[in-house]
Formats: sequence, C-alpha cells, structure tokens
Amino acid sequence: MSKVLIIGAGGVGRVVAYKCAQNNNVFTQICLASRTKSKCDLIAEDIKTRLGVTISTAQVDADHVPELVKLIKEVQPELVINVALPYQDLTIMDACLETGVHYLDTANYEPQDEAKFEYSWQWAYQDRFKQAGLTAILGCGFDPGVTSIYTAYAAKHHFDTIEYLDIVDCNGGDHGKAFATNFNPEINIREVTQKGRYWENGQWVETEPHEIRKDLTYPSIGKKASYVIYHEELESLVKNFPSLKRARFWMTFGDEYLTHLRVIQNIGMASIEPINYEGKEIVPLQFLKAVLPDPGSLGDNYVGETSIGCRIKGKKDGQDKTYYVYNNCSHQAAFDETRAQGVSYTTGVPAMIGAMMLLTKKWSGAGVFNVEEMNPDPFMEQLMTQGLPWVEVHDGDLEL
Amino acid sequence: MSKVLIIGAGGVGRVVAYKCAQNNNVFTQICLASRTKSKCDLIAEDIKTRLGVTISTAQVDADHVPELVKLIKEVQPELVINVALPYQDLTIMDACLETGVHYLDTANYEPQDEAKFEYSWQWAYQDRFKQAGLTAILGCGFDPGVTSIYTAYAAKHHFDTIEYLDIVDCNGGDHGKAFATNFNPEINIREVTQKGRYWENGQWVETEPHEIRKDLTYPSIGKKASYVIYHEELESLVKNFPSLKRARFWMTFGDEYLTHLRVIQNIGMASIEPINYEGKEIVPLQFLKAVLPDPGSLGDNYVGETSIGCRIKGKKDGQDKTYYVYNNCSHQAAFDETRAQGVSYTTGVPAMIGAMMLLTKKWSGAGVFNVEEMNPDPFMEQLMTQGLPWVEVHDGDLEL
Repeated sequence: MSKVLIIGAGGVGRVVAYKCAQNNNVFTQICLASRTKSKCDLIAEDIKTRLGVTISTAQVDADHVPELVKLIKEVQPELVINVALPYQDLTIMDACLETGVHYLDTANYEPQDEAKFEYSWQWAYQDRFKQAGLTAILGCGFDPGVTSIYTAYAAKHHFDTIEYLDIVDCNGGDHGKAFATNFNPEINIREVTQKGRYWENGQWVETEPHEIRKDLTYPSIGKKASYVIYHEELESLVKNFPSLKRARFWMTFGDEYLTHLRVIQNIGMASIEPINYEGKEIVPLQFLKAVLPDPGSLGDNYVGETSIGCRIKGKKDGQDKTYYVYNNCSHQAAFDETRAQGVSYTTGVPAMIGAMMLLTKKWSGAGVFNVEEMNPDPFMEQLMTQGLPWVEVHDGDLEL
Repeated sequence: MSKVLIIGAGGVGRVVAYKCAQNNNVFTQICLASRTKSKCDLIAEDIKTRLGVTISTAQVDADHVPELVKLIKEVQPELVINVALPYQDLTIMDACLETGVHYLDTANYEPQDEAKFEYSWQWAYQDRFKQAGLTAILGCGFDPGVTSIYTAYAAKHHFDTIEYLDIVDCNGGDHGKAFATNFNPEINIREVTQKGRYWENGQWVETEPHEIRKDLTYPSIGKKASYVIYHEELESLVKNFPSLKRARFWMTFGDEYLTHLRVIQNIGMASIEPINYEGKEIVPLQFLKAVLPDPGSLGDNYVGETSIGCRIKGKKDGQDKTYYVYNNCSHQAAFDETRAQGVSYTTGVPAMIGAMMLLTKKWSGAGVFNVEEMNPDPFMEQLMTQGLPWVEVHDGDLEL
C-alpha cells in the first residue's frame, strides 16, 4: 500500500492526480490538496467518472508549515508531490522533514520578491534530508526533469564524454488566444523576461534577454525562432556532468509573444515590486496573472505539438558523436486523456513517474537529489508507456 | 472681487491655478481643491514662489455632492472650474445647482462602467440651470474647447456656410518613456481604444478602431500617421453647425503607441469590468493607471510640440474656400512657464480663459452651453496673449 499526497491543483496537479490514478497498482491511495479545495474536488470527480478511481481531497495553505504538517499527519503519505507554486517549495520541504516523508517537486524554489532561479536554497537542505534518512527529488517535470534524465541516459549509454549540450524546447501549439501563457503566467513571465545565461568553458556567460536567436528545426513542426534563455536545470547539469564544455537552453517564442512581453514590461505590469493600490499592497505581475486567461482553460481548442529534447555532442570510442533525443507531445491528445493541455501534461507525467520510482524503490537514497543523479533507465522505460515516448537520432546534423 | 474654486489638482488643475494666479486682476481669490490636499499644497507653494500670489487649498471628494456643497458654501466662489475626473461632472453640477454657482468643465461626463462619450447626461441639466439663472459651460479645454471656438470663429468671420470640418490633433512631442499617456491613462485608453465615428451626410458613420489612417502634415512637425477617432466635440458641433456635410476628428499615434494599446487590450488590462482580486473589486484599467507613469511627471524632459487645429472647407460669397486655423504649443515652453507639459497646458489655459469670459461677463446666459454657442471673438483675443497664439492659413491645400 503506497499513499501519496499531491499539493497543487492547477493543470499540472490535474495531470499528476490523473496519472497516479491510472497507475493505482503503485499509488494505492491518493490525496489531492490545494488552497482551493473546490479545484481538487472537480479533478477528483473527473477522475472518478473517467477512470473509476476514488481519490481524496483536502484544503491547505502551502505557505504555512503548521498547516502542512497537520495535513501530512492526517493523510500519512510516504511521499509528497509538490506541484504548488515555486515560492512554496521550502515550506513543503520543512513539513516533510518534520513529518518524516519523502519529497518531490518539478521546479526550483524562488523567492517571491526577486526573480532568481537557483538551487542554492534547496541544496541547503542536503544535510537535513540525509540525517533524516529521507529522499528529496528536485525538478522532476519535463524541463527540468526529463531533459536531465535524457542527458544522464546519453552519458551512461552513448558517450564516453559529453561536451556540448543544447536543450531545445519548442511549443508548436496554437491556443487561439491573442495572448496567454502555458503555465502560471507569473512564473512564465519572470522566467522569460530575465537575462539569458549559458555555460561555456567553466563559467556562466550572461546575455541580454533574447539576445541570441537561431531558427531551429523541430521534428514534425519545422523551423521556429529559438532563443537562448536561462533555465534552471543548467545549474545542476554542469555540476553533475563536469565534462560539459558548453550547455545552453533554447526556447521558441513567436514575434507576437515577444511583443506582448516587451509591452508588459514597458507598462510596468511585469514588475514584482508591490505598489500601494487603494490601501492594499499589490504586485503588478500577480494582478496581471489574475487578469490573464487561466492556463488550465487553454486545453479545449489547443492544437499542435510540443517538442522538447537534448542535442548532445561528445566523444565515443575516441570518435566525435552527435545524439538527439526528444519527445513530441500533442496538446489535443493530452487534453483527450487528462483534460489538460500539453505543457501541463509534459510536466505532470514525469512527476508521477518520479514518484513511482521512489515508491517502487527504483530510486532511493538519503539527501537532496537532482534527477540526473538517479538511474535514468527505469524512468526512460516508463516514459515510453506513460504517454511521453522518446525518439533517438544518432549522428544526425544538430544545427547547433 | 471674483472668487473661483478649481476642483482637480492633476496637470490640468496645476495649469488652471497657475494661469488664474497670473490673471489675478480677474481672479482675485482662488481656491484649489482635490481628493489629495497635499497635491494642491504643492501647486500653491509653487505659485507663491514663482508668481508671489497666494491661493488657498482644500480637500474634497468630488464623488459626493454633500462634501462638494459644504466646500462651495465655505469658499463662496462665483464659479467652479471642474478639472477633476469626467466621472465627477454630474456630482459637481449638482453641487453648483444646490449652491447657486456657475460651472465650467473641459471634458464631458462619462459613466465609470462604460466607455460612452456623449453629452446627453449633461445636456439633461439644461432646464435646471436655466431655471436657476446659472451658466454651465461644457468642454472648455483645447479639444473640445478651442477647436469648437475656432469653428465658431470661422463660421462667423470667414464662411457663409461651413461644409467640411476636420479637427487635426498632433502630439509631435517625445517624453522619452517607453509608454506613457499624456493625460489620465484611464480616460486616454478608453477614448483611444473605442470604435471610430464621424459625421457624414446627416448621420454617424462607425469604423473599427484606427481603421481610417492618413499621413497628414503638421506645421513645424511634418508628416505624421493620423487616425480618425471619435471625439466628443463632434456631437455638439454637428448640432450647432447643421450646414456641416462632414465632420471628423484626426489624432496622431505612433506605431509603438498603437502596439502598446493593442497589447494592453489583448492582455485584458484595458478592461473596465472589475475583477475580484483577493477579495477586492478592482478595475484592471484603473490598476494599470496606478502602475503607469503619472502624466504629471512627464514634463521634465518632454521635447517637441503639439499642433491642434481645424481644417475647414465651405462657401464664401458663392466661392469655395478653405481655412486652417491652429496653435502649436511647445512642451518645453509650457513646462518652463507652469511646470506642466504641453497637453496639460493646452487644456488648462482655455479653461482659465473660459472662466475669465464668465467672470468678466463677456459670456453669459442661463442654461447649459457648449463653447461654440458663445461669442468666439473675446476668447480668440485672449488665446493670443495667454500662451496659445493661433495661426490662420486661407485657401491653402488642406490634404483632406
């Protein structure tokens, strides 16, 4: 009997709950909790109707450790899957330590008042998790998550040394709205409007936002303008694969999307500095989030595919080698299965698989881990059958 | 002894107070009131320092008739100059009726919950002002205001019949900010994002927003992309000059400005429908106003000129005739004189002149009037010496 507690009932939480319920031989009891219990109840009803599986729901404010502790004690899970807001990673880790429960998330902690994406805060929990004999798995979504697993898998099976890593993330989908973000707009805009950064020859190179642009070709999608942005998995990957001479992250953005972002910044609505509005402190970006379409509402008419993968160059048996491993995910297929769009789906499925790895003891260890530190093989196997099959291209032209 | 009460301490309120103080032979006592008294005090100090004239200040919430009545009874002005928000026109008119005081404003009433620019609400006060023997002057800024006076002056002196009127409004200035509006952003965005409308052959013709575009040449500025938008003076002008076969209003917008407006609409921040944000009802456009630069702060580095005028075609002595009358106003010169930029200056100076016309009995009458119903000659004379000199071009090429 394995109990799991999922915290967060956005698009990703929906997918995680759905996929756990699909795998109820592993996840024999599932509780879904969120600040707004009614969101959990809607998902639970849907799962009951469509899969015939009953999950429980609960209300919790993940900003408050005592509330979390109380809930964890009631539910008594083996593992908490955190798909709430990145601001809440630390409170949930604290609650797991206090209650002796494993932890897994999909995005690194960031403080609410500065756009700073780094693992330092969570890596600082290393000793506490080690001493408690507990496992904390960080960044087990798609990117970070599957991209890190891809890299570990390539390093293990196809290279003697990996030297050049380009993670390429394309959303070739069309949601039919003038402007909307594919996940929490607050996090999305913070991430996309920051300066670019990549690793080269042992140091970080900083660029202006969207300074480096290249048209890259994505399978079944075609050429798309792609930009070097900073993305959190680079930090742990260059640490865990010190042979990397260069590591970059590319994301596609349409011109209209970038125009919207530029204007959002120009008019001050991307700001995370609160202003006093009629006696209330309000962060413009959080207010904008409330005005923009809910990413969870995008699934309905979302067409097209995402394509995310790793393009790697290195040495094998003394020879140069290239390797490209990727997954394409259809927004429509994701919606048909889980009633969530592809970006939520590609994040939620790996979180479920990571949880499965822990509960089935395929992954174990005391401490705080990034996913590339774990054995990639059983995870890659599950990706094939859980909805995110991958494709390999050996010794092709990588464009990069 | 003539006492005046000015309500509103934004950029326009500053200019009105300043110009009244300059003309303290007419305005022997001046009181400036606003929701935030400290804004009035700053202006009063500046006027004291630079002109040596003392004005009094007061706090008032112009949404509430009893507060207004109390203040008017204390101050005992002959006239209230309303340069507060257009939402507050009716409460201020009510208070003037209750206290027996003349009224003047620069922009027509609009309800806060719909973007509807028309005089109907204020024209409905006609009988009450008439019976009270009081004068209400509507729309006495630049446009409406001076543009209506220009039209009346042309009709009186240069035409037997005016047939085609094009009001052309160019802001050729540069405030150096990525995006800012020149007056209250809430009003500006509501006005600019609405559908276009113009008068032709006895009826209104509606267009999509910014559907009609033409490059027009403005004196000392050059060619600028100009768009047909609806502007409130058209409503009264076609009524008061029934010979008009066509009446349009053109305004210049840069491509960047329009891109910003388009995005502001796309992301939902131009909406006047309140959303519930953490238990508080907030109108997105009003929140955006709080985030955008205060138009009053634009003066400092504002360079370039505005150019606003009327291009008129009609008949004189049986012959076709064209006539163009305009004013160019330098942002820098306006700022040097009043510490407000040109858009505030061109609105505030005519309001002062209108008040002067009433107090010196050059204008009189019981009822509600648009400015073109009054004698334009003494007003045109004052424009020449009060900072907004005008230029006439007879029988030139009007481009339109």
